[in-house]
Amino acid sequence: MRVMGVDPGLTRCGVGIVEGSPGVKGTMVAVGVIRTDPNTELATRLFELDAGLRDFLERHQPEAVAVERVFSQHNVASVIGTAQASGIAMLAGAKAGLPVATYTPSEAKAAVCGNGSADKRQVTAMITRILGLTDPPKPADAADALVIAITHLWRGSLQNKLRLATQKGAWR
Amino acid sequence: MRVMGVDPGLTRCGVGIVEGSPGVKGTMVAVGVIRTDPNTELATRLFELDAGLRDFLERHQPEAVAVERVFSQHNVASVIGTAQASGIAMLAGAKAGLPVATYTPSEAKAAVCGNGSADKRQVTAMITRILGLTDPPKPADAADALVIAITHLWRGSLQNKLRLATQKGAWR
Repeated sequence: MRVMGVDPGLTRCGVGIVEGSPGVKGTMVAVGVIRTDPNTELATRLFELDAGLRDFLERHQPEAVAVERVFSQHNVASVIGTAQASGIAMLAGAKAGLPVATYTPSEAKAAVCGNGSADKRQVTAMITRILGLTDPPKPADAADALVIAITHLWRGSLQNKLRLATQKGAWR
Repeated sequence: MRVMGVDPGLTRCGVGIVEGSPGVKGTMVAVGVIRTDPNTELATRLFELDAGLRDFLERHQPEAVAVERVFSQHNVASVIGTAQASGIAMLAGAKAGLPVATYTPSEAKAAVCGNGSADKRQVTAMITRILGLTDPPKPADAADALVIAITHLWRGSLQNKLRLATQKGAWR
């Protein structure tokens, strides 16, 4: 299964495409950062972000999109731009007809490190190992997007299985 | 000039189309609320909101889009959904090739009432009079979208003129 992970942001939006399946190491297909200029009008920035995301979708044809969830603990001023970017990413996935999942940073850290409060160095070391890379993913900003993609491959699939099992009554 | 005003929201997004020009009363072309179900997945809600906004754009062919600016004084939990909806509205305008402006609620109140802290009743009474309606606009939720459209017609055009005049050196 091929997943596009997105670490949403207006100035820098991380995107990572990973191919893999639950419990096995994944393969990095592509990684990058979509940048928009803070001095440009907001509508133009959203348009450029959308174009950049659609380019990744068209070139790499993922089967699902996973976006880091924006959460309310953040600084309120910065949360608005991050929320707008996450909305654009989710819409791009939905318009491509793909399932779209969201994960909090701690869910993502727990998925790759087994510890929801792992620090950035631990997370980068783990994603480098999981994807069998010789060096940490570059640009560093995009590492989080790869982590979100792996989270979906590992956790999302597990959740789907649990949901299916529950629906089938296997838990009763 | 025809303007689409948007009062962004995920559960209820007000949309109002107004035709007019600076300083003269406007005409209401259309008004409505795009609703999405809070129990539906977020990506699906954003998709439905985008489809609803595009439907207004295609049916009424405005020449500009004006969106109420999401601001940080709001409750942080609700601001995320409002910010996502505003991002979708700005993107829809930009993708239609239209200029997109944003106004704060107090800029909008000042534009229609001459007082940035006017209350909801005053604003509704003024927009009803400005648009020459016999009754307040319905649904009530959408009145704010009409106010944002009028704000753009009156204030945005004035700002454009000031900018042009300044560029031409008329103020030196």
